[in-house]
Amino acid sequence: MTKKITAVAFEYIQDKTGALPLLRSMSEIIGNLSMLIAAEYLCHPKFGNGTMLGGFPGVAPIEVVIIGSGNVAEYAARAALGMGCLVKVFDNSMYKLRILQNNVGQRLFTSALQPNLIGEALKTADVVIAAKHVQEGITPCFISEEMVKTMKSGAVIIDVSIDQGGCFETIKVTSHRDPVYQCHGVTHYAVPNMASRVPPRTASVSFSNFFMPLLLQIGECGGLENLLRTNRSLAKGVYIYNGKLTNQDVSRMYGIPFSHLELLMAAFY
Amino acid sequence: MTKKITAVAFEYIQDKTGALPLLRSMSEIIGNLSMLIAAEYLCHPKFGNGTMLGGFPGVAPIEVVIIGSGNVAEYAARAALGMGCLVKVFDNSMYKLRILQNNVGQRLFTSALQPNLIGEALKTADVVIAAKHVQEGITPCFISEEMVKTMKSGAVIIDVSIDQGGCFETIKVTSHRDPVYQCHGVTHYAVPNMASRVPPRTASVSFSNFFMPLLLQIGECGGLENLLRTNRSLAKGVYIYNGKLTNQDVSRMYGIPFSHLELLMAAFY
Amino acid sequence: MTKKITAVAFEYIQDKTGALPLLRSMSEIIGNLSMLIAAEYLCHPKFGNGTMLGGFPGVAPIEVVIIGSGNVAEYAARAALGMGCLVKVFDNSMYKLRILQNNVGQRLFTSALQPNLIGEALKTADVVIAAKHVQEGITPCFISEEMVKTMKSGAVIIDVSIDQGGCFETIKVTSHRDPVYQCHGVTHYAVPNMASRVPPRTASVSFSNFFMPLLLQIGECGGLENLLRTNRSLAKGVYIYNGKLTNQDVSRMYGIPFSHLELLMAAFY
Amino acid sequence: MTKKITAVAFEYIQDKTGALPLLRSMSEIIGNLSMLIAAEYLCHPKFGNGTMLGGFPGVAPIEVVIIGSGNVAEYAARAALGMGCLVKVFDNSMYKLRILQNNVGQRLFTSALQPNLIGEALKTADVVIAAKHVQEGITPCFISEEMVKTMKSGAVIIDVSIDQGGCFETIKVTSHRDPVYQCHGVTHYAVPNMASRVPPRTASVSFSNFFMPLLLQIGECGGLENLLRTNRSLAKGVYIYNGKLTNQDVSRMYGIPFSHLELLMAAFY
Amino acid sequence: MTKKITAVAFEYIQDKTGALPLLRSMSEIIGNLSMLIAAEYLCHPKFGNGTMLGGFPGVAPIEVVIIGSGNVAEYAARAALGMGCLVKVFDNSMYKLRILQNNVGQRLFTSALQPNLIGEALKTADVVIAAKHVQEGITPCFISEEMVKTMKSGAVIIDVSIDQGGCFETIKVTSHRDPVYQCHGVTHYAVPNMASRVPPRTASVSFSNFFMPLLLQIGECGGLENLLRTNRSLAKGVYIYNGKLTNQDVSRMYGIPFSHLELLMAAFY
Amino acid sequence: MTKKITAVAFEYIQDKTGALPLLRSMSEIIGNLSMLIAAEYLCHPKFGNGTMLGGFPGVAPIEVVIIGSGNVAEYAARAALGMGCLVKVFDNSMYKLRILQNNVGQRLFTSALQPNLIGEALKTADVVIAAKHVQEGITPCFISEEMVKTMKSGAVIIDVSIDQGGCFETIKVTSHRDPVYQCHGVTHYAVPNMASRVPPRTASVSFSNFFMPLLLQIGECGGLENLLRTNRSLAKGVYIYNGKLTNQDVSRMYGIPFSHLELLMAAFY
Repeated sequence: MTKKITAVAFEYIQDKTGALPLLRSMSEIIGNLSMLIAAEYLCHPKFGNGTMLGGFPGVAPIEVVIIGSGNVAEYAARAALGMGCLVKVFDNSMYKLRILQNNVGQRLFTSALQPNLIGEALKTADVVIAAKHVQEGITPCFISEEMVKTMKSGAVIIDVSIDQGGCFETIKVTSHRDPVYQCHGVTHYAVPNMASRVPPRTASVSFSNFFMPLLLQIGECGGLENLLRTNRSLAKGVYIYNGKLTNQDVSRMYGIPFSHLELLMAAFY
Repeated sequence: MTKKITAVAFEYIQDKTGALPLLRSMSEIIGNLSMLIAAEYLCHPKFGNGTMLGGFPGVAPIEVVIIGSGNVAEYAARAALGMGCLVKVFDNSMYKLRILQNNVGQRLFTSALQPNLIGEALKTADVVIAAKHVQEGITPCFISEEMVKTMKSGAVIIDVSIDQGGCFETIKVTSHRDPVYQCHGVTHYAVPNMASRVPPRTASVSFSNFFMPLLLQIGECGGLENLLRTNRSLAKGVYIYNGKLTNQDVSRMYGIPFSHLELLMAAFY
Repeated sequence: MTKKITAVAFEYIQDKTGALPLLRSMSEIIGNLSMLIAAEYLCHPKFGNGTMLGGFPGVAPIEVVIIGSGNVAEYAARAALGMGCLVKVFDNSMYKLRILQNNVGQRLFTSALQPNLIGEALKTADVVIAAKHVQEGITPCFISEEMVKTMKSGAVIIDVSIDQGGCFETIKVTSHRDPVYQCHGVTHYAVPNMASRVPPRTASVSFSNFFMPLLLQIGECGGLENLLRTNRSLAKGVYIYNGKLTNQDVSRMYGIPFSHLELLMAAFY
Repeated sequence: MTKKITAVAFEYIQDKTGALPLLRSMSEIIGNLSMLIAAEYLCHPKFGNGTMLGGFPGVAPIEVVIIGSGNVAEYAARAALGMGCLVKVFDNSMYKLRILQNNVGQRLFTSALQPNLIGEALKTADVVIAAKHVQEGITPCFISEEMVKTMKSGAVIIDVSIDQGGCFETIKVTSHRDPVYQCHGVTHYAVPNMASRVPPRTASVSFSNFFMPLLLQIGECGGLENLLRTNRSLAKGVYIYNGKLTNQDVSRMYGIPFSHLELLMAAFY
Repeated sequence: MTKKITAVAFEYIQDKTGALPLLRSMSEIIGNLSMLIAAEYLCHPKFGNGTMLGGFPGVAPIEVVIIGSGNVAEYAARAALGMGCLVKVFDNSMYKLRILQNNVGQRLFTSALQPNLIGEALKTADVVIAAKHVQEGITPCFISEEMVKTMKSGAVIIDVSIDQGGCFETIKVTSHRDPVYQCHGVTHYAVPNMASRVPPRTASVSFSNFFMPLLLQIGECGGLENLLRTNRSLAKGVYIYNGKLTNQDVSRMYGIPFSHLELLMAAFY
Repeated sequence: MTKKITAVAFEYIQDKTGALPLLRSMSEIIGNLSMLIAAEYLCHPKFGNGTMLGGFPGVAPIEVVIIGSGNVAEYAARAALGMGCLVKVFDNSMYKLRILQNNVGQRLFTSALQPNLIGEALKTADVVIAAKHVQEGITPCFISEEMVKTMKSGAVIIDVSIDQGGCFETIKVTSHRDPVYQCHGVTHYAVPNMASRVPPRTASVSFSNFFMPLLLQIGECGGLENLLRTNRSLAKGVYIYNGKLTNQDVSRMYGIPFSHLELLMAAFY
């Protein structure tokens, strides 16, 4: 701020539909990654139940329960279905479940996220992916310790929601060094910021897909300042403008005074 | 026999691959029919559990367990999947399960037909289609009364195998007039010869698909006798030849002396 | 109103996109149901033409004409395609036909809803599902008696639009007790409020999917009044607020004075 | 023959299943080609009806009738379905129709090849592909002139069976120079040996796929003679062995004496 | 304008979502058409490389590179995939690539449109469809002459973007009379206004799908003037209102004074 | 042999079609496993190129080259396609490539296994799965060191054929303890007997699917001896009969005298 820079937080940049495009791409990659991690632990001699992720003629498929129906959920479901798993998706938004089903291109098991319904599914699940974006001020979907106790020994939980506190009563934050632990015979994986495990080349392609057109536009417009005036998507990501903090959340969190971006931008003319 | 006729039983006619083509077509139709009957009883105020066959976004799909993996099973599975049900197919032939999966064009839940595996699936099933061709002298797949007791109230069993004794300990033959009964809260449908319920127009198209080319060949060959010499498929279906019984099973059942078709045909020249 | 209640009509509640989420879920179920009813009458000894809904190798598939391209149409099409029928969808919104095709995940016969085009399709149709939402003040899609006369004997019409007057010149309202009649050899099914035939358990799951999150939010917000201030979707469904009528349509229909919800809500503070 | 060569006719070489592998590959390419030719004439200002092969939201799809269900038919169907056409396949072998449907991976309109059924379909067809292998001594599938008269003006017939006489009463052999003519307003394409129009590079890849492994095996075995002793597939294609004719059909056609390959091969040791 | 007419440009009419519905339908048809033209030149003895558009078992598929991800791109991709080609789609909008993939119902090769990535793909491409809508003031996607030099001999470029200047450094406008030329061994097709080649019947169905409901609404409303007041979609297309020019672009281009439609419409009351 | 046992080698048991059913099931599991191992090394900080197995909108998919078209290849292809990879399958049997494509239910890149064709594909491959069953006495498909040099740095080779010597000039046997090494920047995985890494539970289900029905049949027949007389599949697996060696390969390898099973079995009566 003392250097009077203008800073843009990429994770706040919104597209025309109000979605967060960069997070969306990262979520797709994380969804796929979560199934690969689940596969790894499922057949792990110590942490898994000795099964192979997938389904084969005559060998009942691995059951995958997915909590949430956003991008992580969609790409976790795609990977699991692609290997022949039985997938069950739980969420309370019928609207999002409908879109997930249409995107995946296959009718699949979807259900409202009620305790008795999810509880029934957990009993036979081999893998649980928790990928529910928990909105502020809303009681999270909460899988109780009692429910975890009913799960099969060697089942694997991947809690992608751990950044927001997680979806399980039994969950504790883990680290890349020691990523899993067992509780009631169930393996828990809860490394925060899973995106940091995304392979570097895939991540950088995804990022440059996003930044390259922005950088070209900045060049064509004659600088970031000019682009900010016309590109509302980009403006949503600005949190410091010429050294003034413009993001309310950061202001609240660190007690730094806050200015309205629109007013600042108007003032500079 | 006194009229010295030559009679052909269509259900014994085999194609080049040893399969029974007419039964195959009828089986496809019966497979589809069995799911329509299941749908009818599932939402029946008295016999069903008040659910709609299918699956909808947010409404967990109806679970359909299919025992067997032949043509009836394939077309029952196709209809059920087409309406969004969760389908589980059990059989002991990995070879047939593999073909069913490939024909259906979708990876699905298949499993060996072991008591503990099928028992687990029955607990959550809404519909059970038993479509296992029971071979002579082999102990049938047998769903015990204990297993039926674990099923959900209002679940529906359609036992297409009833002609061969059925697959359930609790099954009793029913009739078109009184097609179902309840036992341990589970609705049992076991009308023998389900093919007779196949709608007449669909059945007759299926039959004429089969007979028309045969009749044309008989005409071109100068009569049935001539065609029988070259068409081994047709010859497999002959059970009376010029008034002599040529089918071993019928011979055994009614105590009528039996002649070899080949010898009889040779003798006529 | 004398009890000063606040009443919410669930069928008026809108989601963020302006759609009616509860009607959407019910429509999906009705779409599936309409095909099951069609299947039932198609093979009915008295009312049908003796055919089985579906398509089998060598047996030309049942032709299903669907008028409309909303949710009822989509799920009727899914069920029909799933059983192997030949499906033709007619509507005047290319936009909605495009979405239906993408959702169904298969390229299918879609066409503008012009009299000569639909007339041609009716001649070979076995089943017609009319699922067109007729907007007020617009001349409805009207299948004339002449067109019905050209249809095949034993064909089945399911008029889901009957609540709004129906799409056929030959249609008359029927009842669950006597659901069908024949006219020019064509079976007509026109029971109003088909949703009431939806199996109770499936319907109640669908309803509770919708109400449960609302009830939880009401609890968290400290009452319906509070939630109404932030949840615009819910507010759309309010038709009585503290005993005052707030719905224009009901006001007009019963001649009861009408108040603006926003004004009333402001006044209460 | 005077040069004492050994000659192999590639079109007679059979694989283990008795099929003709080279013809199979060429048939797949011809099936695809036939749809591209149909597309070309369908929108031809003089010969077509001014339509685009395919189907689009709101524009009723082009109807393609395919007679036969072998490899040509399968790949014609795949191309047509891929562009959104409505495809109807007619054949008298339920067995082959079933396989075609499973290979194509989509339930489609299949029907027995009866005059009244095909006649009905021709009335609305835009494209007809005749791809029926006519077996010797069997009355061919015959589309009468009366049926062609009922077809739409500007419809296109591609008769791939023309090498064997064709399937239409109105068909006459055409040439690459003058490939089509109109009869009753219907465009007829009947250039014999369609494989010669297959693009050279695609054809040569297809051929070398077939010959390369054979040539390598000949090299490894120490010459053609040796390979013929172990490779029954290849031996099926031999029609001259060390200058002696070994093919019965050629013998009959040209009146050249015929020797048994097996006896000749034995004699050479 | 002297006749005081009111004129509507159909290509400016917008639907509720801001999309241009008529252009959308035409784009779908052009997308399909572009693949048929590519197929024609690919196997052309003079202009192609002697290959058949498609892919067959054992014959590596034709590679199709599509630049852009709108409706032209989607339907070009559908046709190419339907015939078995390997399709690679390049665009800088991840959002549009995602939708294209979901609509097509199959995971496919999509990539950001960066010079090095597209350059790599061009080396092995047989067909390139440029279908990128170039926005005003933005540097177009530009395939340099150097990149074209690396392409395979006999490859085919169809530049649907030619109306906006095209996407290739080597492109020159061609005509229906002389539609292609070769440059560096690559065949270039760049006939502007490809929609004029769309077969007349298909185009007219597409147009009447669009105009028929509008004409009916005009009739019901008591004239165009009335409909314009309520139908914002239609109003977007008006460029002359009672003889006054109302379109800014035309005003700028021809130097004719411009009036606001809203003001004019208000003035008439 | 001194104990006069009768021994059956399960890997020699054949089904009616001459296939090896147990190996088939194991191959399906290994095919899936090989992709999971590839995924693991692809994103390995030391051995991979930092990419995620799969394909995402805008991120060009991982290219997977599969050599062979049997069961391992099919299930490797299914897993790779399911995660969105670009898959290229090479084999010299068009027949097997055709079946693989039909089973997978999607048209994909297949090609003859010629050095120049595979060489081209290796240049852009991220993952290579060699799953070609090398027949005795046939020169194996051989990827030369030169070809490996052209591959991308960090690409991963999984040589499932290592038990038979492998398909690469650069391959050396590795072990579960030290499973990979790098050569020319390419990671090589060549642990023999990959089946031993199959997770124990999945493997044991697969085995018991196979043995359970056999054991039941042995029980019903009154012992193995009796079953061997009627079950030709099982007899194929016998290599010691009452202490006599009956397998030619083992006889040759260890120099133990060999007896014909049929003669031995006849002698025991």
